[in-house]
Amino acid sequence: MAISTAIGYATLHDIFVRGRDLSKDIIPNLDFVDMVGLSIFGKVPEGNFKRMINVLMVTSTDHGFTPSSMCARLTYLGAPESLQGAVAAGLLGAGDRYLGVTQNVAEMLQSESHDIAVDAPQSAFDARAKDLLVRYKQQGKRIYGVGHPIHTDGDPRVPSLRAISRECAYYRSGWRLLDALEKINLQEFGKHLPINGAGAMGAIAADLGLDSKAARGLALVGRTAGLVGHLLEEAVTPSAPDMWRVVLEKETSAELAARGGKA
Amino acid sequence: MAISTAIGYATLHDIFVRGRDLSKDIIPNLDFVDMVGLSIFGKVPEGNFKRMINVLMVTSTDHGFTPSSMCARLTYLGAPESLQGAVAAGLLGAGDRYLGVTQNVAEMLQSESHDIAVDAPQSAFDARAKDLLVRYKQQGKRIYGVGHPIHTDGDPRVPSLRAISRECAYYRSGWRLLDALEKINLQEFGKHLPINGAGAMGAIAADLGLDSKAARGLALVGRTAGLVGHLLEEAVTPSAPDMWRVVLEKETSAELAARGGKA
Amino acid sequence: MAISTAIGYATLHDIFVRGRDLSKDIIPNLDFVDMVGLSIFGKVPEGNFKRMINVLMVTSTDHGFTPSSMCARLTYLGAPESLQGAVAAGLLGAGDRYLGVTQNVAEMLQSESHDIAVDAPQSAFDARAKDLLVRYKQQGKRIYGVGHPIHTDGDPRVPSLRAISRECAYYRSGWRLLDALEKINLQEFGKHLPINGAGAMGAIAADLGLDSKAARGLALVGRTAGLVGHLLEEAVTPSAPDMWRVVLEKETSAELAARGGKA
Amino acid sequence: MAISTAIGYATLHDIFVRGRDLSKDIIPNLDFVDMVGLSIFGKVPEGNFKRMINVLMVTSTDHGFTPSSMCARLTYLGAPESLQGAVAAGLLGAGDRYLGVTQNVAEMLQSESHDIAVDAPQSAFDARAKDLLVRYKQQGKRIYGVGHPIHTDGDPRVPSLRAISRECAYYRSGWRLLDALEKINLQEFGKHLPINGAGAMGAIAADLGLDSKAARGLALVGRTAGLVGHLLEEAVTPSAPDMWRVVLEKETSAELAARGGKA
Repeated sequence: MAISTAIGYATLHDIFVRGRDLSKDIIPNLDFVDMVGLSIFGKVPEGNFKRMINVLMVTSTDHGFTPSSMCARLTYLGAPESLQGAVAAGLLGAGDRYLGVTQNVAEMLQSESHDIAVDAPQSAFDARAKDLLVRYKQQGKRIYGVGHPIHTDGDPRVPSLRAISRECAYYRSGWRLLDALEKINLQEFGKHLPINGAGAMGAIAADLGLDSKAARGLALVGRTAGLVGHLLEEAVTPSAPDMWRVVLEKETSAELAARGGKA
Repeated sequence: MAISTAIGYATLHDIFVRGRDLSKDIIPNLDFVDMVGLSIFGKVPEGNFKRMINVLMVTSTDHGFTPSSMCARLTYLGAPESLQGAVAAGLLGAGDRYLGVTQNVAEMLQSESHDIAVDAPQSAFDARAKDLLVRYKQQGKRIYGVGHPIHTDGDPRVPSLRAISRECAYYRSGWRLLDALEKINLQEFGKHLPINGAGAMGAIAADLGLDSKAARGLALVGRTAGLVGHLLEEAVTPSAPDMWRVVLEKETSAELAARGGKA
Repeated sequence: MAISTAIGYATLHDIFVRGRDLSKDIIPNLDFVDMVGLSIFGKVPEGNFKRMINVLMVTSTDHGFTPSSMCARLTYLGAPESLQGAVAAGLLGAGDRYLGVTQNVAEMLQSESHDIAVDAPQSAFDARAKDLLVRYKQQGKRIYGVGHPIHTDGDPRVPSLRAISRECAYYRSGWRLLDALEKINLQEFGKHLPINGAGAMGAIAADLGLDSKAARGLALVGRTAGLVGHLLEEAVTPSAPDMWRVVLEKETSAELAARGGKA
Repeated sequence: MAISTAIGYATLHDIFVRGRDLSKDIIPNLDFVDMVGLSIFGKVPEGNFKRMINVLMVTSTDHGFTPSSMCARLTYLGAPESLQGAVAAGLLGAGDRYLGVTQNVAEMLQSESHDIAVDAPQSAFDARAKDLLVRYKQQGKRIYGVGHPIHTDGDPRVPSLRAISRECAYYRSGWRLLDALEKINLQEFGKHLPINGAGAMGAIAADLGLDSKAARGLALVGRTAGLVGHLLEEAVTPSAPDMWRVVLEKETSAELAARGGKA
């Protein structure tokens, strides 16, 4: 039996990550985004690739009260002894519907666009988009990366992420197919489902050629920072007790009414 | 009732973090370490402060098979559908003993050194160290940040972290007290308990003036990246089945022996 | 090196738990509460002890929207692929403030009452209660097990739990000290802080002579069942989207107001 | 907006679960298995149904060192302040491969057998099994509930669970199809993949007519108790440090060898 990892190991006197000395080489010379790349992709990211990795993590970090930050705060209310528990609780919702769905988007775009040349005419992406929309509907499969409960007119992150992708020459098949999906869905089927932030991040991950799990992974790194910010604030000016209270106030049930309410 | 956060919020058309427009200002202009600072500390970190934040996250990221990476891999073995669950499992051990203990170190150093002038003579820190060691022993309290199961001769990260702290002018009261603790423990009590990596990170957090919870928080951000690296590797070349197997092989019990072993 | 557990093990053909054959003996003969006892305490619980273990788990199971069930539901919203992740998120808040605080109560009551004879006159418990209240206040320590955000007049579970404890001859030193704390706090210090459900459960755990961690552990077993109930309901009639919406509606900030609200 | 649950709620003076008074009715009268049924299924389980619910939870509780108990212990090593965190870490692996896979088995058996009369001749189940095995292979889908890394000759829990199911008149379509899968896989395709414990539990859940998520949910309730048992033992006689050590001893890598090993 042999248990091995290419990531790193410690000896009595040294620690190595991807073959580099952590203490003498990595800590003095790399910034955290380099280290993220070294850990996840096995090499220090450079140039536009590094910029895009930054963009994926920055975009995932935070934007106020979301199910994940609410969850972290509600957990901290009960267990302030464990910051890591509250962060973990906040991350656990980063799945197939929110945030973590970047992985599902990347998978969908990679598997559906790998056989179209990146410089194929737009009509090729439009045709694939139409085919995909019909096929997924028949199979009862979900189209990932479109629609948003708040930004019903369009997610403000998307134009920004598209522009940076173009600038960095990473506007490729993933993006082209995703844009086609939004367009064809409206033109052919009358459905206005704008691309959302996770959709754009999934397209970027696809066009960077990442393992789709890395898309979810980078979102988790970003969100961890956001959750730490929420928890440091919660420790000083708590909002979780009011979240609980407002839910109880809005709670309604026939049974409760029949008993004459809550008093 | 008013639920509020100073971190950020979304409107129909925009998202703001710490008062800055996420799409038009933050995503195009900030790198992830800036965003970590903006989220957690409320401002973009600069200069040596930014360098030290980088160092804290880089040092926490990874070093091969540790309880946290083992835990993440063992979780992924049972639940590959949820990368976030495996990451969360790996983070949950970042508590008062490993990794998260940076928080406990920072708390201890801040509360024990805040009344000593940063440029006081070394004898002041030595005296406090001796007092602390005696007092904690009497009270049955744990001294955080010293000793390591593998690096029994001294943790290789410590000299590197100390050198960078000096270089950046963040070798202050926290570091001075921690160094005094190691020295006095040996000189006065004959105990060789070298400073460990978490100890050095706690000293840095103390000397940066961070909320001690931020020390644990930054360690969580770093480690999340490390765990993602492990899980992407585990998906391709699994080691968790062998971890299980080797534990079962080493398992011993009188009862099991009495039954003639495992066959 | 020897890794061993007294709990159980598997051979090629059999599985044993606490020395009993799982397949041929345990599964056919034990109910789940027996199995809980066998796993946690090493023996099948009997008589009044079994009844009290039942009571601890039943009381912990559920009561509608609480931070833990809200957290589980908010997590499921983002990650329906992982029921276990949503349950884990709901359990993570069972710490030193809610639910898990049964452990802290049991610890406090056990360490503060172990030197008073169980049949000592009430005055002995009253005196200890007064001493404890003064001492904890001086040391800035929290009194666990009293006060409740909703049941400000008294927690309805407490009289019921006290009556069953008496009936089962488990109204002992833990309960006597806890009742004294409520009484003395009011009589001597004018503070009306009624015993809460976790307080009563902690007193029961103390009077059963349990390891205080088992008090938290049994609460976790009970709550897991409650959370599963919530999640099965959430999958059919979701309330998490409305929880998020109501929090955003109640969100207020000077900054948001200055921008003319959310539209 | 109306947030509602049929599970329960609290008023100033009372707590109700499924319309019954928690303090005056439920705590005095129900055992924990009744309460599990009330929470998850909305009614107190009776007779053979209650027996089968017991069997599902008992079977899931524990059997020594498994990835989930290893994970809980490794987490406790780093974060003993949070029993709930260690339990959560142990539950997070109860997914689509181990333990939680009862859900996948139940789904598969329910969707594949619902159109076969429960008393159809065995040939009907055999034909469906063959069809399923061919179809799943073509589609690259996993057959859940068969095969085990340790019990390669057959899982000892299975005959016991089958016998109790028959005794309780719950040996129905789910079980019949699962048994056919094992038989046909061997007869027609020469594959010896015996039914495993999760397979049998999934068949029971299917034949009880449970929501497939409840199958995973009951396994989580059972396992929570098992993990609490492991953690109470770990606190007294730790095995996690040796688990780590043995993994490091078995660690091998070309790189490490090239450096002359670990010393």
